[in-house]
Amino acid sequence: MSVYSKFETELAVRPDDIDLYQHVHSTRYLDYVLAARFDQMERCYGMAMQAFAQRGLGWFMASATIHYRRPLGWGDRMVVRTWIESFTESGCRVMFEIDKLPTAKRVCEGHCDYTLVTLATGRATPLPEDVRLRYSI
Amino acid sequence: MSVYSKFETELAVRPDDIDLYQHVHSTRYLDYVLAARFDQMERCYGMAMQAFAQRGLGWFMASATIHYRRPLGWGDRMVVRTWIESFTESGCRVMFEIDKLPTAKRVCEGHCDYTLVTLATGRATPLPEDVRLRYSI
Amino acid sequence: MSVYSKFETELAVRPDDIDLYQHVHSTRYLDYVLAARFDQMERCYGMAMQAFAQRGLGWFMASATIHYRRPLGWGDRMVVRTWIESFTESGCRVMFEIDKLPTAKRVCEGHCDYTLVTLATGRATPLPEDVRLRYSI
Amino acid sequence: MSVYSKFETELAVRPDDIDLYQHVHSTRYLDYVLAARFDQMERCYGMAMQAFAQRGLGWFMASATIHYRRPLGWGDRMVVRTWIESFTESGCRVMFEIDKLPTAKRVCEGHCDYTLVTLATGRATPLPEDVRLRYSI
Repeated sequence: MSVYSKFETELAVRPDDIDLYQHVHSTRYLDYVLAARFDQMERCYGMAMQAFAQRGLGWFMASATIHYRRPLGWGDRMVVRTWIESFTESGCRVMFEIDKLPTAKRVCEGHCDYTLVTLATGRATPLPEDVRLRYSI
Repeated sequence: MSVYSKFETELAVRPDDIDLYQHVHSTRYLDYVLAARFDQMERCYGMAMQAFAQRGLGWFMASATIHYRRPLGWGDRMVVRTWIESFTESGCRVMFEIDKLPTAKRVCEGHCDYTLVTLATGRATPLPEDVRLRYSI
Repeated sequence: MSVYSKFETELAVRPDDIDLYQHVHSTRYLDYVLAARFDQMERCYGMAMQAFAQRGLGWFMASATIHYRRPLGWGDRMVVRTWIESFTESGCRVMFEIDKLPTAKRVCEGHCDYTLVTLATGRATPLPEDVRLRYSI
Repeated sequence: MSVYSKFETELAVRPDDIDLYQHVHSTRYLDYVLAARFDQMERCYGMAMQAFAQRGLGWFMASATIHYRRPLGWGDRMVVRTWIESFTESGCRVMFEIDKLPTAKRVCEGHCDYTLVTLATGRATPLPEDVRLRYSI
C-alpha cells in the first residue's frame, strides 16, 4: 500500500509524438510523465518547478525504468498517475502509470529516481525540511 | 477579410518543449499548429486526418513561414487559431496565429501550404469535391 | 563476460536535444541508443531495420532501464556501445553504455528489452532462425 | 551572386526524426539547419554559440521560411548548406539548402532571420563590430 497520495493529469497525444510505427514514440511516454509531474508539483503539492529554480534548486533524473504494455496512437487521450514511493536523503522515487482514456487500459508503468541538485554546481543536495514536508502528502 | 472560418484550440507547453534559452524551442510552435489543425480537422470540419488516411490520402507540408513575436515558457498556455486562406487544385494555404493565455498577446503567426497526396505514391492529387466542400466552411 | 559482440557508434548532440537545464534532455539518451542500434543493425549485423520491415516485422520496445551518471551538453560528442545480453523466444535484451568523447567518461548505461512483432497485427512472433543466427555474433 | 561564403555540414537522419508518414517530420528540417549552423559557427566562423553566451548574448529566431521539395527517410544522409545573405543592425538573414546524399537532390530550402539579443533582458542589441567582421567572410 502506498503511503503517499496518487495524483492524476490528463494529456493528449500530439501528432509530433507519433513515430514510424504509427504509435507514440517510445521515449515520449517519459515526457508525458515529466509533463504530469510538473503539473502536479504546482497544482497538487503547491511547489512548482519554478519555485525550486528560484531557490537555485533543480531535480535531475538519476534513473528511469519503464515497462510498455500497449501503445498510444493518433489523437489518443491518457491519464498519467504519479506518486512518491520513498525518499532518500537528497531525492525520491516517483512511481508512474499511464492509462488510455476512456478505456483505462494500462499503457505503461515504471518509476523514476530524482535527485535534488544545486543548479550552480550540479551537485546533489539534501532535501530541505520544508520541501520534504510539502511533498510528504 | 477572411472568407473561411477561424477555429481555436487551447494547448499547454510541455516541459520537453523547452530549449536551452528556457523558452519553447523555435520549431515546436509549428508542432502546436499541427496539433491544433489535427484537432480542428476532426472537431470543426468533421473529417479527421484518419479519415483521409482511410481513403489513402495524406496532407504533406509544401512550405511554412513563421514570424516570432514573443516566446512561450515553462507551463504557459496558448490558443492556436487557424483558418484556410485559399485553395489550389490540390492543396490549401492555412493561416495561423498563436496567442499566449490569458493575456492574448501574440506569440507568433504565419502560414503553411499543404498538398493533398496519394499516400501510396506520395504524389499530389486534386482535392475531391466532397473534401473541398467540407473544408469550405 | 559478454558472449555477444559489443559495437560502437559515434554521435553528436544536436542543439534541439538540449533542455531547460542546458543539458541533453533525459529522454534523448534513449534516442541516441536507438540511433546507434539502427546503425549497428545495418553496419555490424548486416540486417537493417528496413530488412525487417520488408518481411513484415518490427522491433517494439518492451521495457527500458537507464541510469544517468553525468550529462552531455552543447556540442558534445559521444560513443554509444550496445550488445545483446540474451535472447528469449521472441526477443532480446540489448545492453548499452554511452561515454562522452574524448574523455570516455560514462554518461549513462542501461538496457532495453525488445520484442519482435508482426507489423500487421502488432503481436509478438518467434525469432526466425536466420535472424537469431545473424544476431548471435 | 552571394557575397558571403557558403558552408556545409553533413548530417544523418535519426530514427526519432521519422514521423507517421515514414518521413522526417516537417519541423525537424529546421533543427538540422540549426545543428549545421551551430557546427559552422564554431568550425567555419570561429565563434561558437557558447562564445556568444559567455558574452551574455544569444541568437533568437525572428522568422523562418521553408520550402519542401522531397522528403528524407530512414537512415538517409544529407548535406546542409548555409550562408549569410545580409545583415541588419542587430541581426542577419541566413539562407539554407538541404540536399540528400549521395544524389545531391534538393530536399528543402529557405531562410531564417536571426536577431542578436542580450540574454539577461531578451532584447535586441546591435551587432558588435568584431562579430560583424568575423561573420562577414
